Amino acid sequence: MKKLSILGSTGSIGQSTLSVVQSLGDRFAVCALAAGRDLDGLVAQILRFKPQLVSVAQESDVPVLRARLRAAAVKLPEIAWGDEGLIAVACMEGLDIVVSATVGAVGFLPTYKALALGRRVCLANKETLVMAGELMTGAARTSGAELLPVDSEHNALHQCLRGERLDEVKRLILTASGGPFREIPIEKMREATVKEALNHPTWQMGSKITIDSATLMNKGLEVIEAGWLFGFKPDQISAVVHPQSIVHSMVELIDGSIIAQLGVTDMRLMIQYALTYPERLPTDLPSLRLDQLSKLEFLEPDIERFPCLGLAYDAMRAGGTMPAAMSAANEVAVAAFLDQRIRFMDIPRIIASTMDAHNTEPCSSIESVLEADRWARSHAGLQAGAQKSEIPISLVG
Amino acid sequence: MKKLSILGSTGSIGQSTLSVVQSLGDRFAVCALAAGRDLDGLVAQILRFKPQLVSVAQESDVPVLRARLRAAAVKLPEIAWGDEGLIAVACMEGLDIVVSATVGAVGFLPTYKALALGRRVCLANKETLVMAGELMTGAARTSGAELLPVDSEHNALHQCLRGERLDEVKRLILTASGGPFREIPIEKMREATVKEALNHPTWQMGSKITIDSATLMNKGLEVIEAGWLFGFKPDQISAVVHPQSIVHSMVELIDGSIIAQLGVTDMRLMIQYALTYPERLPTDLPSLRLDQLSKLEFLEPDIERFPCLGLAYDAMRAGGTMPAAMSAANEVAVAAFLDQRIRFMDIPRIIASTMDAHNTEPCSSIESVLEADRWARSHAGLQAGAQKSEIPISLVG
Repeated sequence: MKKLSILGSTGSIGQSTLSVVQSLGDRFAVCALAAGRDLDGLVAQILRFKPQLVSVAQESDVPVLRARLRAAAVKLPEIAWGDEGLIAVACMEGLDIVVSATVGAVGFLPTYKALALGRRVCLANKETLVMAGELMTGAARTSGAELLPVDSEHNALHQCLRGERLDEVKRLILTASGGPFREIPIEKMREATVKEALNHPTWQMGSKITIDSATLMNKGLEVIEAGWLFGFKPDQISAVVHPQSIVHSMVELIDGSIIAQLGVTDMRLMIQYALTYPERLPTDLPSLRLDQLSKLEFLEPDIERFPCLGLAYDAMRAGGTMPAAMSAANEVAVAAFLDQRIRFMDIPRIIASTMDAHNTEPCSSIESVLEADRWARSHAGLQAGAQKSEIPISLVG
Repeated sequence: MKKLSILGSTGSIGQSTLSVVQSLGDRFAVCALAAGRDLDGLVAQILRFKPQLVSVAQESDVPVLRARLRAAAVKLPEIAWGDEGLIAVACMEGLDIVVSATVGAVGFLPTYKALALGRRVCLANKETLVMAGELMTGAARTSGAELLPVDSEHNALHQCLRGERLDEVKRLILTASGGPFREIPIEKMREATVKEALNHPTWQMGSKITIDSATLMNKGLEVIEAGWLFGFKPDQISAVVHPQSIVHSMVELIDGSIIAQLGVTDMRLMIQYALTYPERLPTDLPSLRLDQLSKLEFLEPDIERFPCLGLAYDAMRAGGTMPAAMSAANEVAVAAFLDQRIRFMDIPRIIASTMDAHNTEPCSSIESVLEADRWARSHAGLQAGAQKSEIPISLVG
C-alpha cells in the first residue's frame, strides 16, 4: 500500500484524486490532506479517508474544523494551517507520493520540498514548473524523485514518449480546446463577462485555470512546463487548437511519425496514470467511442486574439525569473478579472506591462524566484488597480 | 553496415525499400534481390546496388537477364530462379535483414526459412502470417529472429506498443481507408470494373493489395496478421474506416487511454522504421502538416457491403488451416477479377464457398499449410471458372 498526501484536496484535481484512490481499493492510503477554505469538503474527506494530518489555509479555520470534527465524533487528525501546513502535508514522514494540486504559486515551496525528499510528485500545479522548472527538475534529479504530470496534455505527452528516446523527438504538439472564445471576434472578447469566460466547452475545472484556458495562457504555461518536464526548447514545442479535446497531445519523431494520445475528457484517467505508472490499471470510465472521433479538427492558434500564448513563449525564451514574473502577473490579473476589477483583454495587457518592467535574473535559488514572484504581483496589482475606472458599469455591478 | 536482401524487389514495397536504403547512405548493403518478371526494373536495380545474388520468377528469363547485364558491362551476379531462387535470396549467408515483400503465398517458405535462420524479417507480405502465423512466430521465437511489420497499420501498432505492456492492452484498432467503394451502394459494387476497383483513394500500391483494399479483405488479412504479430484474439482487434488514412492505427489500453500513430501516407516511413528499429532516423519526407488533420473521420465498417472482413474474422476464429484456405481462395478470386473472369462481388462469394467446403486441420507443419493452400486454390479456381458465364459482355471485352 502506497502512502500519499494531497496538496489542494478539495479542489477539482484533489477531489478526482480521492475518487481514483477510492476506486483502486487498498492500493493507496491517504495520509495527509491540505485544503483551502472549503471546510465542508475537507470534513467529508476526513470522515471518509481518515488522514493523520490535515491543513487549512487560515489559522482562524483551525478551531472551526476541530469543533466540526468533534461534533462528527471522528478521531481528530493533526490540524495545521497556512504555508507551514502545506509544507507539513508535503513532507510528512513515510509518504511515497505527493499530489500537488493547489492553484497558483502557493504550491511552489511544498512541491519543491517533496521533490527534494525523493517522493514521486504527481504534478497538477503548473505554476510550479513555470516559476522554477530549473530548480524543481534539479531537485528531482538529485534526489531521484519522479515527476509525473497530471495535466492532461503533459500526461498525454508522457504516454506518447514512453517508448521513445528523447533525442529522436522532433517536436511536442500540445492541443488546446481553444476555450469559450475560440471563434469570438476580438471586439466581443474585450467585453467578455466572467460568466462567459468561465463557460469552458469541454473540461470542468477550477476558475483560475478556466480563465487561463479562455486567454490561452493555460497553453502558454503548458508550453513552458513541457519544456522543463521533457527537456525541450521553445521552438520544439507547438500548440494547436483542437476544439474536441479528444487528442490530448502529440509527439512528432525525427522520422516524421507522430504518436498521439486520445481519451475521454476525464481527469481521473490522467491522475490514475500518474499514481500507478509504470503500471496501467483498468478504470470504470467509459471507453472512447469511435463515433466520437467522427470529426476531429486541428487549427493554428490566433496569436492576435490570444496574446497570452505569445507572451509565454517570450518568457520561456527570456528564461531566468521571467516565467515566474509572467505567471505571477497572470495570477493577479486573472483574480482581478474574476473580481470584475478589470476586463478580459486587460489580462494580457497587465502581463505584458509587468514583463516589460521585469528585470530578469538567473533562477539561481528559491529566494530569487519568490522575489520575482513578489515583485510581479506588486507590479501587476498596481496595474490592475489602475484599470479599475475603465470597467463598464454593467460589469462592476 | 547491415546486409540485406529483398524478396520482391521490383514491386511497390521493394522499390520503396531500395529508395530508403539509398537515402540512408552506407548503413545497409543490398546483397541479394528477388524479382518477378520485371527484368527492366531488376536490371536497373542491379546496376545501382550491385547485389551478389539475384533471382527471377521464370527459368526462361535467366538467359535474357544475363544477356542484358553483359550488354550493360556490369559484373554478373549469381542468377537464380523460381521458388529455389527466392529461398536462396532469403537464406544467403551473412544476411542481417530480409525484406519480405512478395505478393501472395509465394513468399511463405522463404520467409519461414529466414526467420528460422534468426534474421530480422521486415514483413510486407501479409499472407505469410495469415497462412501460418503459428509456424512463423514459432520459428522466430526459437531462433530469436525479430519480425518487424512494414504494413502501415501493423507498423503503426508496433510504434504505439513500444512503451506498453501487452497485458495492459485492451484492444488493437486497425484503420482502413475504406477503399474506392466506401460510399458506393451494393448494386453498383456488383457492376464495378477493374479500373474502378484499382482506383484507391489514398495509397499507391500493387494491384492485388489494391483490390483487397476495395473488398476490405486487406483489413481482414491485417486483423489476422495483427493477432499473430502481437498475440491478440479476434475480439481484441477492431477495424475502423478512416478515409483520410492519416491515423494508421491505434491501441486502446486497459485504463481507457488510446495511443495512435499518425503520419504522411508514404511507405518509406514504415520501411525505414522496420529496417532501423529501435533507432529512428530523420527522413526527407515532408512533415505531416497540422492543417491536413483539419477533418479526420472514423466510421464503423459495413459488413454487409464488405463481407470479406467478416469472412476473415470467421477464418481467424476457426483457426488451423482455415486462414490459409481463405487467403488462397482470395488470391485466386482476385486474380480472376483482375482478369475480368468474375465480377467484384463474386470475390467474397468464392471465398465463402471455399471456406464452407474446407476441412480445417491443425496448422501443424508447413506441409499442412501448403496442402490447404493447394486445395483452396483448386476449389476456388473451379468456382471462378464456373462464374464465367455470369460476366456481362461489357466487362469481358
